[in-house]
Amino acid sequence: MILIKIGGGKKINLDAICSDIKTLIDKGEQIVLVHGASTIRDEIATSLNHPTKTIISPSGVSSVYTDAKSIDIFLMAYVGLVNKRLVEKLQQHGVNAIGLSGIDGRLWQGKRKKVVYSQIEGKTKLISDSMTGKVEKINSPLISILIENGYTPVLCPPAISDENEIINTDNDWATGVMVGALHIEKMIVLFEAPGMLKTFGDEKSLVKTIKKDELDSYIQYAQGRMKKKVIGAREAFRLGLKAMYWADGRIENPVINALEGGGTIIS
Amino acid sequence: MILIKIGGGKKINLDAICSDIKTLIDKGEQIVLVHGASTIRDEIATSLNHPTKTIISPSGVSSVYTDAKSIDIFLMAYVGLVNKRLVEKLQQHGVNAIGLSGIDGRLWQGKRKKVVYSQIEGKTKLISDSMTGKVEKINSPLISILIENGYTPVLCPPAISDENEIINTDNDWATGVMVGALHIEKMIVLFEAPGMLKTFGDEKSLVKTIKKDELDSYIQYAQGRMKKKVIGAREAFRLGLKAMYWADGRIENPVINALEGGGTIIS
Repeated sequence: MILIKIGGGKKINLDAICSDIKTLIDKGEQIVLVHGASTIRDEIATSLNHPTKTIISPSGVSSVYTDAKSIDIFLMAYVGLVNKRLVEKLQQHGVNAIGLSGIDGRLWQGKRKKVVYSQIEGKTKLISDSMTGKVEKINSPLISILIENGYTPVLCPPAISDENEIINTDNDWATGVMVGALHIEKMIVLFEAPGMLKTFGDEKSLVKTIKKDELDSYIQYAQGRMKKKVIGAREAFRLGLKAMYWADGRIENPVINALEGGGTIIS
Repeated sequence: MILIKIGGGKKINLDAICSDIKTLIDKGEQIVLVHGASTIRDEIATSLNHPTKTIISPSGVSSVYTDAKSIDIFLMAYVGLVNKRLVEKLQQHGVNAIGLSGIDGRLWQGKRKKVVYSQIEGKTKLISDSMTGKVEKINSPLISILIENGYTPVLCPPAISDENEIINTDNDWATGVMVGALHIEKMIVLFEAPGMLKTFGDEKSLVKTIKKDELDSYIQYAQGRMKKKVIGAREAFRLGLKAMYWADGRIENPVINALEGGGTIIS
C-alpha cells in the first residue's frame, strides 16, 4: 500500500497525479490518498470575511488558528470543494474513488487540545476556543474494507475528537499515524517544490537523499510548514515507514517521478 | 431498511432526529439517511455573490439553475457543511455515521441533461450550461457493505454523470430510485410542515392518509417543491415502496412520530 499526500497549493497538477494513480492501480498497487486544501480554504475564508489567522507556537511551529466558524469554512473547502473535485477527477481517470473526511466512521480520532499557546509580539498568549487536536487513532478496518472492494479512499481533515467534536488537525502528523495503523511502507508527499531544499526558494539546492536517522538535523533547513513535514516524517518512520518521497506535484508524472527518485528520498 | 429523508430547512430538529435514529438502530433497524441543505446553500450562495436562481419548467415544476460555480457552492453547502455537521451530530448520539455524496464510489449515477427549458415571462428559454441530471443507477453494494459493517450511511447530492461530471440532481427522485435498488419498504420524509396539507400554509388541513394510487390527484394541492415530492413518491411506489411517511421534522421524536402516523401516511 502506498500513501500519497497531496499538498493544498494551487499549482499542483491534479490531472497528472490522477493519471499516475490509475497507472499504479492497474499494476496492482493499493493507494490511499490524503490531500490538503489550504489555498482554497484561505480564499473562501477571505470571501466570507473570516480570513485565516496563523499562530506560532512557543517552539516556533506555525499553524492555523481554528475557531468554530473556521471549522465551517474548513469543511466547505476541504471536504466540500477540494475532496469532491478530486474524486470527480479520479473518476474521470477510471479510478473508483471514495472521498471521506476524518470524522466519517471515526476515521481519524484524537484528543482536542483544551488550550493552545501562541507567541504574539514576544509574549505567550493562551487560546481556549481552538478547535484543534492531534490524531491518535485510525479506523484502519474501514480503509481496508473499501480497498478490498475496489475503491480508492481519498481522505482529508478534519478529524473527530474523543468527545465527538470536529477538530482541525495536522495532516502531516495524521498521515504519520496512518502509516503505523495501515503498515504502510512507502509514502509520497507532493507539493510545490522539487523536494527538500537546503536553501529556501532555491530549487537547485535540492537534497536528493536523507537518512531517516538524520531527519532531525534537517529541521534547520525547514521553513514554515516544512517544519511540520519533518516532524510528521519522523513520526512515520518511528511507526514503521521504510521510505518517504518528497517531490514536485506541479510536473507531469509527479507520482512516478517521486518513486524514481526525482525529488528527495528519505529512508 | 428504513430510508429517512431530511429536508434542508433551518427549523429541522436534527438533534431529535439523531436521537430517534439511535433508538431505531438499537432496536435492530437498518437506516439510510439522505439530507437536503437548500437554506444553507442559499445563504452561502448569497455570501459569495452568486445567489441561487430558480427556473420553472414548461410543466410548472420549479428547480434550481445550476452552472459550474453553483456546483462548487452546492458542494460546500451539502457535502462540506451540512453533511459533516450531521455526521458529527450522529456520532454525538452514538451512531457511527459515514457521510457520502452521490459521486463517491459512483453512489448516484445518472444522465446529465444536455439542455433544460425554462419558462421566463411566458416564453420558453433553452439553457445549455446546466449541470443537472436525473439519477438512474445506485451503487447499492457499497451501501450494503457499509451497513453490514455497522455504519450508518448519510447521503446527499450531487450525483455523477455517465461522463463523470458532477451534476445536481433532484433528491426526491434519487431517493425513489434508491428505494428500488435497495428494496426499501418504508421511507420517511421530514420537512417543515406536519405532512401533506390540503391548503398551503394551513397546518389544520393535514391529510392523514393517502392511497398510493391516488397520489396523482394530490399534485393539485402540492405547492412549489411539494410537486417534486409527489412525483418522487409516485416513482418510489412504482419501484416497490410499501409505505411513505411525510411528517414534521421540527418537533421532538420526529421519526417515531412519523412512523406512528403523526403526519401523512401514503400506502
